[in-house]
Amino acid sequence: MSNTFGTRFKVTTYGESHGVAIGGVIDGCPAGLRYDDALMVSEMARRHEGKGATTRKEADIVEILSGIHNGYTLGTPIAFRIANGDVRSDDYTALENLYRPGHADYTYDARYGRRDYRGGGRASGRETAAHVAAGAIAKMLLLTKGISINAAIAEVYEAETNDSAAGVIACSVDGVPAGLGDPVFDKLNARLAAAMLSIPSAIGFEIGAGFAAARMKGSQYRDNWKGDGSMATLTNHCGGIQGGISNGMPIVFRVAFHPVVTIGQPTQCVDKNGDLHTWQPQGRHDSNHLPRTIVVVEAMAALTLADFMVQTTHTL
Amino acid sequence: MSNTFGTRFKVTTYGESHGVAIGGVIDGCPAGLRYDDALMVSEMARRHEGKGATTRKEADIVEILSGIHNGYTLGTPIAFRIANGDVRSDDYTALENLYRPGHADYTYDARYGRRDYRGGGRASGRETAAHVAAGAIAKMLLLTKGISINAAIAEVYEAETNDSAAGVIACSVDGVPAGLGDPVFDKLNARLAAAMLSIPSAIGFEIGAGFAAARMKGSQYRDNWKGDGSMATLTNHCGGIQGGISNGMPIVFRVAFHPVVTIGQPTQCVDKNGDLHTWQPQGRHDSNHLPRTIVVVEAMAALTLADFMVQTTHTL
Amino acid sequence: MSNTFGTRFKVTTYGESHGVAIGGVIDGCPAGLRYDDALMVSEMARRHEGKGATTRKEADIVEILSGIHNGYTLGTPIAFRIANGDVRSDDYTALENLYRPGHADYTYDARYGRRDYRGGGRASGRETAAHVAAGAIAKMLLLTKGISINAAIAEVYEAETNDSAAGVIACSVDGVPAGLGDPVFDKLNARLAAAMLSIPSAIGFEIGAGFAAARMKGSQYRDNWKGDGSMATLTNHCGGIQGGISNGMPIVFRVAFHPVVTIGQPTQCVDKNGDLHTWQPQGRHDSNHLPRTIVVVEAMAALTLADFMVQTTHTL
Amino acid sequence: MSNTFGTRFKVTTYGESHGVAIGGVIDGCPAGLRYDDALMVSEMARRHEGKGATTRKEADIVEILSGIHNGYTLGTPIAFRIANGDVRSDDYTALENLYRPGHADYTYDARYGRRDYRGGGRASGRETAAHVAAGAIAKMLLLTKGISINAAIAEVYEAETNDSAAGVIACSVDGVPAGLGDPVFDKLNARLAAAMLSIPSAIGFEIGAGFAAARMKGSQYRDNWKGDGSMATLTNHCGGIQGGISNGMPIVFRVAFHPVVTIGQPTQCVDKNGDLHTWQPQGRHDSNHLPRTIVVVEAMAALTLADFMVQTTHTL
Repeated sequence: MSNTFGTRFKVTTYGESHGVAIGGVIDGCPAGLRYDDALMVSEMARRHEGKGATTRKEADIVEILSGIHNGYTLGTPIAFRIANGDVRSDDYTALENLYRPGHADYTYDARYGRRDYRGGGRASGRETAAHVAAGAIAKMLLLTKGISINAAIAEVYEAETNDSAAGVIACSVDGVPAGLGDPVFDKLNARLAAAMLSIPSAIGFEIGAGFAAARMKGSQYRDNWKGDGSMATLTNHCGGIQGGISNGMPIVFRVAFHPVVTIGQPTQCVDKNGDLHTWQPQGRHDSNHLPRTIVVVEAMAALTLADFMVQTTHTL
Repeated sequence: MSNTFGTRFKVTTYGESHGVAIGGVIDGCPAGLRYDDALMVSEMARRHEGKGATTRKEADIVEILSGIHNGYTLGTPIAFRIANGDVRSDDYTALENLYRPGHADYTYDARYGRRDYRGGGRASGRETAAHVAAGAIAKMLLLTKGISINAAIAEVYEAETNDSAAGVIACSVDGVPAGLGDPVFDKLNARLAAAMLSIPSAIGFEIGAGFAAARMKGSQYRDNWKGDGSMATLTNHCGGIQGGISNGMPIVFRVAFHPVVTIGQPTQCVDKNGDLHTWQPQGRHDSNHLPRTIVVVEAMAALTLADFMVQTTHTL
Repeated sequence: MSNTFGTRFKVTTYGESHGVAIGGVIDGCPAGLRYDDALMVSEMARRHEGKGATTRKEADIVEILSGIHNGYTLGTPIAFRIANGDVRSDDYTALENLYRPGHADYTYDARYGRRDYRGGGRASGRETAAHVAAGAIAKMLLLTKGISINAAIAEVYEAETNDSAAGVIACSVDGVPAGLGDPVFDKLNARLAAAMLSIPSAIGFEIGAGFAAARMKGSQYRDNWKGDGSMATLTNHCGGIQGGISNGMPIVFRVAFHPVVTIGQPTQCVDKNGDLHTWQPQGRHDSNHLPRTIVVVEAMAALTLADFMVQTTHTL
Repeated sequence: MSNTFGTRFKVTTYGESHGVAIGGVIDGCPAGLRYDDALMVSEMARRHEGKGATTRKEADIVEILSGIHNGYTLGTPIAFRIANGDVRSDDYTALENLYRPGHADYTYDARYGRRDYRGGGRASGRETAAHVAAGAIAKMLLLTKGISINAAIAEVYEAETNDSAAGVIACSVDGVPAGLGDPVFDKLNARLAAAMLSIPSAIGFEIGAGFAAARMKGSQYRDNWKGDGSMATLTNHCGGIQGGISNGMPIVFRVAFHPVVTIGQPTQCVDKNGDLHTWQPQGRHDSNHLPRTIVVVEAMAALTLADFMVQTTHTL
């Protein structure tokens, strides 16, 4: 399942950072959805234009290969492809036999016995371009149902030259009808947690009051009814989900990110024997990746919500 | 997928709090595993004996119906059943037409158009008995591989009479080999996050340094190699997982829980028209459910790890 | 996936022939379906009362453990359990170390390294009782949509004393709306084929004109439109499915079964070393299992159709 | 699941006949497999060079986009893409509002409310190019394990000018070890049946003695042991599978195909109102598609077997 996200509105992604292309296939998108190219372009731009972006130019043109005819989805798989452009791989030969600290170099080798060492290969942050492209299509679907997703930086920290910093991104999903989510194991909150933790460098997730709720009393925490004839509540400590199912209030959650581990400083790597070697990273890197990550958070939230919107028949 | 956890070592659970029985079916447990009844009994007891347990007596005898022959697993489905005992449902008739605040009463109705209103029905905390039973079998598998799981309360708060409190549970998984986890979407950390958020009242998850990592610099955060010929690191801020795959260090994470929302105080409920009604909960309830939840955290961690241990062939 | 059938309306079965019980869990049945106990009882009786039934008495009382409240489904998992009654296992000790010809004794050992040798264990025809029980619930769902399933023996052969015979069962599904089925890999005909081949002793499947269609010309085979303003066709050589999707005509197919391989004659078995041993089967066995298999064919068809009726949203 | 085949070695295909491209993504192929480009080219050629091929030129160059580095698989998704070339769509405008008999035109509209009417869209036989490409990679995997697949025409019929004919293809899989297949629902024979019925125009499937077995006595049918110290049998009426699991004998099966329904004769189509219109097909079509289908049968068999070879851990 590793490269597929979702169970009904599903996306399977592919691609290594320095291969021919990255991309994906969406299966389960309903027929009759108008494809909004402007939204696709703007979402890809949001991912690209974070402050302090790397020098590598990513055109990130999303080419649609199938599943859309005369501007509308057909109900068949929507394949998309993002070319990797004119990448130079020779910068990476020094890393063929070294494991950097904090990276997935060693763990990929431990799992697969080999890896594409160029630019992080499959583990590259570049892979999130496919998430954003798929997420844009999920957003198109959600927008027709009146559901909107907005993420923003909640906490951000700064780093001096040749170091990195991170922070916390908060996200709100508005317009979700009550009754969305599967109880017990596929709870909407559980699936959102998994979606967020699948983003590179995500390291914490909380919904509603989150970790602060651990210090509340039950009488404080529980969200009392407004009693105005609606099913709205006075507070939203639960973050819009009860028993794994949406209650019609906004869904609010926060995601903590750790700083990127590639920094401009000399770095001690190990080889396969465990011996240390000093490696000096080249080029510029983002000192803080959060500006570029906002749209990734939204994309993963959109994919999660779209998967629940494309529901199976659950009432007779 | 809602009632199935896992993709290879899978458990499907069933049961309402006041129905005939709860239970589950494990599919994908390898053949040849010795069934350890003493471990099963002690795990069920750990769930039952939390301080301040409810007065309702839960025998929680796990009856094995299939999949084990002469004390060893057959490779076929392991079905287990936990009788609900002599439950009295008449206490709950007052709740047939009321939605309690903070509960899943309204959301189940929004999704299914009906619900078993007795004792929370499928949304009852009682359902976690099936998680613990399945988790015990997962632990039996993991123990043969030298993997052990230990959770403990990291933060706990207290409540006065007729209120409730909660806290944070920390968990460590030791002995996990490097190379476990699927990259991109089925990352080990993502699956652990989903497993934990599927526990009733879980509201936050962090791995390794977690939310604190958001405030670190990259130079502080990254786990440098020991350089002693092993692949061990000097620190473990990442919590034992890089790029979604285990690196051989202990896997450490924390889960925040909100207090239970059923407390002894008069409670404003709404009916289907949104009108308020005062309801006085009967009986005693746990003032803090964390002592009983420790083993549930371990069970969900065990199910997650077992699913990754029962791997598909990923090298030739 | 081995013990789960279906992707949306799913049943997971469990149980060995001589264990405590067999049974299953249905996940994905919509809420609000009236449970028809009389249909359940009559379906189980149809399986039991085939002419020439074995002497072993199978009460086959289906006990519902969850998922139904006040006579209606809740949308939660429906667990059912069929006790194995007072079985005597000592008849089977001779088979602990022998592989019978035509049975799954050797193949189970090859796969799992062990097996429950009593009465066929998991590979027993008894397992189909769980199929029929699940199929009965699927039929309840289909009947609310006007879909009925009728199988009958199309060809049957007879055997002398101490031998066995088989034949062909034909099945028709009426009332299926056009538009059911997933193209490419989850074609309705492909899923029906898999459903039928999963029945013990099934060895061939054909839909519509089937193998006879291989000898037709295209001009004969193709089903021309009636042209009466409906989408009906003059013939139904395709068996009601085009491109994997139902076209509104009856779905008709046939399933070939081989004779049961346990017969009253002395039988050459092998042990793990490949050495031959003569074994004399005890008790009476069905000389022709087709009368008991009719309802199993219907059950598997019902499970297949129910899975497609519980569809995901495929148009906006 | 519709566009994904397999559960462990999985392929998801995409593409409409006259869109930009068709292709697929293989997820779950083990790392370390040598990519054999010559095999890929020859398999695609086998599909292309059937006698009586259509005039439309299909270059069918398979471009690998990811998952292979330095000639070996990485364990990451293998994406491939086959351009649709310089297709002229204007031939098909007459079909925008007509449903041809025997085609999936009406059923796709019934399901999705719209379709790509050009050249059959997603329902085109062209889609099998993606099956063959994926099957070629599955064959590379199987060959490393000593498993070979050989299909051939067993029965073939001829048609006069402007008509079509079909026949039966037989297939043998040699070298399959005993112990492959999942019991109960994912039986190896059930999965092969589904694989074959997913091929356009497949209409019947039988394994081993198949429909002829329905007329055999048990004493004739059952495959007796050779008794030579091996687990081989004197006959192979069961087709190499017992209880859903391979027994080490060759796996043999046959697939019946109906003739293609597009023939050169004037054809009565209906519009959405059910009114008849005469349509004259243009261009040449295969009078018998079996020569081109042989490799498709092998490809689907290879994908099925590869999925079972990439097993989960099923013994301790």
